[in-house]
Amino acid sequence: MRWLVTGAAALVFLSMSGPRAQTSGGSQAPVALVLHGGAGAIRKDQMPPGKEAAYRETLAEAARAGWDILQGGGSSLDAVETAVRILEDSPLFNAGKGAVFNHEGAHELDASIMDGATLRAGAVAGVRRVKNPVVLARRVMERSPHVFLVAQGAEAFAREQGVDLVLPSFFDTEERWRDFQRARAREQEEGRGGPPGGTEPPPEKRGTVGAVALDRCGHLAAATSTGGMTNKRWGRVGDSPVIGAGTYADDSACAVSATGWGEYFIRAAVAHDIRCRVAYRGESLQSAADAALAVVEALGGDGGVVALDARGNRAVSFNTPGMFRAWVEADGTVTVRLYEDP
Amino acid sequence: MRWLVTGAAALVFLSMSGPRAQTSGGSQAPVALVLHGGAGAIRKDQMPPGKEAAYRETLAEAARAGWDILQGGGSSLDAVETAVRILEDSPLFNAGKGAVFNHEGAHELDASIMDGATLRAGAVAGVRRVKNPVVLARRVMERSPHVFLVAQGAEAFAREQGVDLVLPSFFDTEERWRDFQRARAREQEEGRGGPPGGTEPPPEKRGTVGAVALDRCGHLAAATSTGGMTNKRWGRVGDSPVIGAGTYADDSACAVSATGWGEYFIRAAVAHDIRCRVAYRGESLQSAADAALAVVEALGGDGGVVALDARGNRAVSFNTPGMFRAWVEADGTVTVRLYEDP
Repeated sequence: MRWLVTGAAALVFLSMSGPRAQTSGGSQAPVALVLHGGAGAIRKDQMPPGKEAAYRETLAEAARAGWDILQGGGSSLDAVETAVRILEDSPLFNAGKGAVFNHEGAHELDASIMDGATLRAGAVAGVRRVKNPVVLARRVMERSPHVFLVAQGAEAFAREQGVDLVLPSFFDTEERWRDFQRARAREQEEGRGGPPGGTEPPPEKRGTVGAVALDRCGHLAAATSTGGMTNKRWGRVGDSPVIGAGTYADDSACAVSATGWGEYFIRAAVAHDIRCRVAYRGESLQSAADAALAVVEALGGDGGVVALDARGNRAVSFNTPGMFRAWVEADGTVTVRLYEDP
Repeated sequence: MRWLVTGAAALVFLSMSGPRAQTSGGSQAPVALVLHGGAGAIRKDQMPPGKEAAYRETLAEAARAGWDILQGGGSSLDAVETAVRILEDSPLFNAGKGAVFNHEGAHELDASIMDGATLRAGAVAGVRRVKNPVVLARRVMERSPHVFLVAQGAEAFAREQGVDLVLPSFFDTEERWRDFQRARAREQEEGRGGPPGGTEPPPEKRGTVGAVALDRCGHLAAATSTGGMTNKRWGRVGDSPVIGAGTYADDSACAVSATGWGEYFIRAAVAHDIRCRVAYRGESLQSAADAALAVVEALGGDGGVVALDARGNRAVSFNTPGMFRAWVEADGTVTVRLYEDP
């Protein structure tokens, strides 16, 4: 019965015996939260000061909202859903409001969420009218017999569930429209793109959001949401809604949310790779995150991850010039970082 | 630079130096092939003799076709694509012709393929007119900059690529229609289903097909194709097109194709879990496959996997009464098995 004491299955049984508190010896179990708003060509010298302030403010607001839930004894699932929802609602990030345009000038949104205590998960891809895809992903997890719903079917489920629907134009923003026009112009110059790796990653594909959290019961959760890649075609789905690629959570190892060039993150199964490096090889969380990112880089991709383990250890890793990220220290101090150097 | 010698990245570099031959000391590198046609309530006492013969014949035909490609020096990618295509073309299996009906009485097909030498991958979900979804998955891998395409977008790509399209009614079969009617009747008795685990797995969700192969250059590949779950709703996608869940291939570890109750295989990231148990913990392939299936079982799911490593070791594991499976011995003998006991 090796599987009872190693890997994911152990937690299934442990969690049946009720909430656990994994402390590091302190009187109160630690809670923790890390979130990201995408990784990419984020450079201080190219960032208008007013915009930098807006990014910092929204990242801090999302971190604080998630933290308040955790401090109040709420679940890590509620914390990551809330943090991601706030980032979705901001036009600054490529998720929810502010999502990029696809090849047809429309928006197709993807999201996922996972519960580290039970390995339950929910994911949606290619939805066009769902205001908060992360909310729908959680409904899939909790109120459907399925894990992964796509396209019009996912929207039919959203209608049945009564989640907030909006007109597709709700997601339009001026800035993403300019990104789209630039991408189209570049495409016409280059002719149709070859396989990934043949071209430089366009800067417009950035801005996926995500969060990982640890609650007072020792349970981890992860959530990720995105508008995908500017000018994406043919119903393209990236790593964000793929459990194991963009999102994974397992109390026995860690919770991970990724952002970056999704094709490479799927191929390397980044989130689950980090989980396995921790669970099977005993790597530290930071070492595991760095190693998984190194595989992505070796393949030709880039991006970043945020991760937490059940002791509250935090890891952030990225191989891009910058990554929007925030976390809360044990004393409640919110830290926001945007660039390679703080 | 630990990641250069462990895990997936190593192969990226090795494969750049050209085809490798990983022999076990013999004069010619081994080739190997294992395929499956689904796992489930497959019992000898419930199998009409004529039907058993038809299953055996088609599984043997697919195995032989893949083997011939490998023996002729062809690639593992060609071998798994060909074997899966033959199973898709047979109405006996729940993939391609013979796919199950969804809640609307239509067919939505999913497939994926992965190249162990480069970790390139292609996947499609929710296509309704593509005769051979595995062929489309390979086109996604080789002729698009993306990995995963879904629904109408994937079909638009199929049209551009000139892959064989058929009328949706092409996939209809009498037997699957009866399965669908039974599932609807059961649903009406039970009311709408709760979350997975709340009900017994319906027998009609079986029949996913898949293959893994090792070619003379030492390269692994895996492919999987399915019609999904009878009476599935809301654009439900199972594990078959999810890289890391239903399909994974990495020359440095193994190739895996899975079949079963897809929701559980996504949550446990079964194919990638087997890869990581081999790569990070040095488990034998059979032990890794058994352990990954045990996680699925602990969560409440069932199904099976076929796997191969780069030395040609074969593993088959399932926790259902039977699993349609076939492989070719080193001397060219084709073995077909259907039940728990041969």
